[in-house]
Order: sequence, then C-alpha cells, then structure tokens
Amino acid sequence: MKIVVLSGGVGGARFLLGVREHASPAGHEITAVVNVGDDMWHAGVRIAPDLDSITYALAGVNDTERGWGRAGESERVSGELRAYGVGWPWFTLGDLDLGTHLARTHYLREGLGLSGATERITARWPLGATLIPSTDSEVETHVVTADGTLHFQEWWTRHRAAIPALGFEYRGAEEASPAPGVLDAIASADAILVAPSNPVVSIGPILAIPGIREALRDAAAPVVGVSPIIAGAVVRGMADACLTAIGVETSAAAVALHYGSRSAGGLLDAWLVDSSDAAELARVEAAGIRARAVPLWMTSPEVTADMVAAALVAAR
Amino acid sequence: MKIVVLSGGVGGARFLLGVREHASPAGHEITAVVNVGDDMWHAGVRIAPDLDSITYALAGVNDTERGWGRAGESERVSGELRAYGVGWPWFTLGDLDLGTHLARTHYLREGLGLSGATERITARWPLGATLIPSTDSEVETHVVTADGTLHFQEWWTRHRAAIPALGFEYRGAEEASPAPGVLDAIASADAILVAPSNPVVSIGPILAIPGIREALRDAAAPVVGVSPIIAGAVVRGMADACLTAIGVETSAAAVALHYGSRSAGGLLDAWLVDSSDAAELARVEAAGIRARAVPLWMTSPEVTADMVAAALVAAR
Repeated sequence: MKIVVLSGGVGGARFLLGVREHASPAGHEITAVVNVGDDMWHAGVRIAPDLDSITYALAGVNDTERGWGRAGESERVSGELRAYGVGWPWFTLGDLDLGTHLARTHYLREGLGLSGATERITARWPLGATLIPSTDSEVETHVVTADGTLHFQEWWTRHRAAIPALGFEYRGAEEASPAPGVLDAIASADAILVAPSNPVVSIGPILAIPGIREALRDAAAPVVGVSPIIAGAVVRGMADACLTAIGVETSAAAVALHYGSRSAGGLLDAWLVDSSDAAELARVEAAGIRARAVPLWMTSPEVTADMVAAALVAAR
Repeated sequence: MKIVVLSGGVGGARFLLGVREHASPAGHEITAVVNVGDDMWHAGVRIAPDLDSITYALAGVNDTERGWGRAGESERVSGELRAYGVGWPWFTLGDLDLGTHLARTHYLREGLGLSGATERITARWPLGATLIPSTDSEVETHVVTADGTLHFQEWWTRHRAAIPALGFEYRGAEEASPAPGVLDAIASADAILVAPSNPVVSIGPILAIPGIREALRDAAAPVVGVSPIIAGAVVRGMADACLTAIGVETSAAAVALHYGSRSAGGLLDAWLVDSSDAAELARVEAAGIRARAVPLWMTSPEVTADMVAAALVAAR
C-alpha cells in the first residue's frame, strides 16, 4: 500500500512518526510531500525547516525536549555570526543543523534541485519514508500586515505571530511547479493523508503549487485529513492567528470546510476530529465530507499510529 | 607614513604583526594587500584563507599552537558535513572559522565585493591595519600536474605538495582588476614591503592581477622584499616545491632575482636576506637590487619589528 502524506514541520513530523509506526511493519510505502513555504536564505545558506524537522524526527536525532532542531545542539557558529553583526539576532542556527543547511546549499550550488538535495541528505539515515519537497522552486510564505509584508519566519519566530496578519502570500507559487515525484506519488497513492499541520502556512503553500490541487482532485486514492484543532484550540504553534487572518474560525469543523469536500471540488473525502469535538461531526458531514471522532493527541508514535489506522479506515 | 604590505596568509600574518609592532606606536598607517589565490567555494560558502589568517592573527584570536585557524576551535559542523558525505574529508571547517565564511558569503550574496565584505568582517576587531584583497574577482590558483590540474588547496592541503607541480595557473586573473583601494594604496604609499610569503602562490597571484605590477613599478615609494628562504630552506610551508616547479632555486638570492630589480622592470628596490645568507648579498646587488643581511626569523612580533625597521631603512 502506498501512503502519501501532505505535511508541514514539527506537527507533521510527529504525525509521520505515527504513520511509520503503523505502516512500516505492514510493508507500506510512505511518501511525505513537504511544505517549503518556511524556507529561506540566511547568511548565504538555504534553510528548509519543515524538511529538516521531519528528517530529524524520523532519524531520531531531534530535540524532543525543546520540540525542534537537533538533540545535543550547540551554537558556536551562530555566536560568531552575531559577533559579526550578520543575520538576525532572533534566529539561531544550531551547529548540527547548520551542517544540514550547508550540505543542502552545496547540492543546490552543484545544480541539484531541492528534491535532489533532499534525497542526498535523507540518505544518511533509514527514515522509513521518502521526503519530497512540494516544489524545487523557491516559494516562500510572506505575511501581510498593516505595516507591510514580512517573511513568515520573521513573523512567526521573531514576533511570535503577535502582529495581526491581514493575509498570506505564497511568493513564487504561481511560477512554480511540483517537484519531481510529487504528482506521480499522488497519482499512484492508495491513501492520501493531510497531516494535522497548520492549514494556512503548512498545507496552504503545498496546495498553492499549480498542479498539486488538481492532482489531488484527480487521484484515485481517497484524501483524509486530520484536524490540527482540538476543542477549539491549536495543539501547538499559533495556527489560530493564521486562520483568523484568512477568516476561518479556530474549530475542527471550520478547517474541514476551509479545505472543502472533494465532491465539491475541494480537498477532502474524510476528516478526523478529536473525540472531544464529536459535536462538530454533523457540520462536517453536511458539507459532504465523511467525519469520524477519534483521540487526536499525538502523545507517542504508538498512540499516533492508532490515529493513522483510524484515518486509513475512514479512507475506505 | 603609509606602509603597504603585499602578503599571503600565515607567514604574511606573522610579518604583519611585526609591521604593526613597529609602525603603530609611531602612528603609521598599514595597508595589507592580500592574496586571494587560495580562496574557494566549499559547501556553498566562500573561504578566503589568507585574509582570515591575517585577520585572526592581528585580532589575537588565532591558534598559535597549531599555526592556523582560530584558537579554541571545534569541528561540530564539519563532522555533520562528513556524515552527509559532502565536501572533502581532507579539508576541515572549524566552527568559529565557518562563522567568518558565512559572514563573508552573506555579504557576497548581498552584492558586496570581497573587499566590502572584508571591510565589514575586519570591523569586528581593532586590527591596526587595513586589509584589502588583491581583487574582488574570483582568481584561484590551480596547480598543473602530469595528471591534470587541481585547486591549490587540494594540492597543498590534501597532497601536502607531494605531487610534482609542473606549473601554476592563476585562473581568472586575466579578466580581473585590482580591488577598490589597492591602486590608491600603492600610489600613495611611503614604503611598500613584500612579506616573506610564498613567492609563487602568495605574492605571484597578487602580481598577476592586471594593473598591480604596473602600479608597483610606477609607485613613488621604494619596494623592499623580505626573503622567505633562509639558509637554502623554506621557513614554513612547502614553497620549495612551488619554486622548483617554476625553475627557481630555493635560495634567498634566486627569489630576489625571480622578483627582479625595479630598475630593470621588476619588483624590487631592495631585498633583505637572513644573516646566515650574507654570502648571497653580492649576487642580489649585481642584479641591481640593494641587499641587506639581518636576522629574519620571526620568533615574536618584537623580533619581527626589528626586521621591519631594517626593511624601512633599506627602503631609503
């Protein structure tokens, strides 16, 4: 069985640990199509936070206490950069993490696309999943505010999403095309899962790449999403600030309606909400999306595996 | 008084410590025109070994035991790069050193030339000297061997200069021009010193930049060189392998003749040899170059300052 997962970074990584936990013993193939909207150039190196978060988590080298980056990280290089006055004081490059950025930059400068660079980088570990960036083009999410636009990373990391967002721009998306392998993976999938990642800045930029939304619409496989909202609140991050900016209420049902029913030209065949949100099922079903309520707290890969199993059942 | 020094890396740095020791108390201005032939792109960052060696030495943050790089260095990032199979196992990037490369790469990507990037980087410390790369262009030294050519760094660091060199190419030199400030510094200098750096791969690539040799010939200031050869042997490094490749014997006099007398269209008005090489003075003088024998072992900035004082006396 071939399982394709649309995914952002940290939340997506946690979800993918559950997908692997559930699917690997059965010999299923897992392909993650990963958001690149958070990517950026910084001090001459290409940073791809979502790809790296997933890689580190699946490799088991992520910092589980801090919730991001590499375990055992240090900041020697970053300290030097600060001493030179280069870059942003609010953005820290860990030394181990920087090794990944430099490897990626090396491959990009050699002429490989981001997908090729990702293939080389992920070959270091047996991840149990294939990671493909949504696109090899540079598509970066910018946040529109009353005072102008800024890169998503600056809004998110520096300002902790505290500046009211008026909207989001996926810069470069219109001219971008899906990375090699993305459309094939979607077309040949047996199940397509939408990770409980930020709908606006993680899944949104993937769907903004021309051709991907169409491929999902035409896919033989069912598309099942998992709500990133539990009991009217985001599980992690500041997705509520993003949803509010695009006029979507912070609720499991509203996000499903935002994605839309595939039967009506949208994304979803089915949608999982948390057991605590069972009251929202009817509203989702009314929109033509099959809905199930199951526990959605991803407290461990084993628990998350049960959630993935429920998603695959809902896919049938 | 304005003193201009043509300089390579480690040996040049040691010489510049002496120049500063001698000249700074008297309020003299020091400008180092620095070789870029060892520079290269590696893992997407621009490395400039000679500029950095001088910067670290003048800043007092160099590793005096190892003789190169930063004191208190670590190799966390380099370990990651090796794990990814990126780059050359024989070439180590220190973490602190990498901070400098990233700062430089950042400025280059922002559109600054190498000279502008160097100005920003060196502003971090009170160096007591202005560092200018010979050129903002990418001029890299390649070594011609029987099996083809390779970058100077690979020949020098990986092969320890053990592969017989048939010659040297300063790739890109023909289309290069002196960095902003180089010609002005030479034209307005009161004394021009040639550091006891490798004549072939440190001073040679500086002289290969069109316009620099002419400026030195036209300069009002005398040009005084210091022999990198003492008692028929190189003081450090493997300059003998380089000299042999271009048919120059490893002796203090032969290097002076290689540079040539300014009165005959060459580089030098005067030349310092070590006291142990006093027998070579006549041969140098016969070529129209004033020659003096003084102690040339740069055992400390104070000792080197005496050598610089002697060079300035020889300049009169």
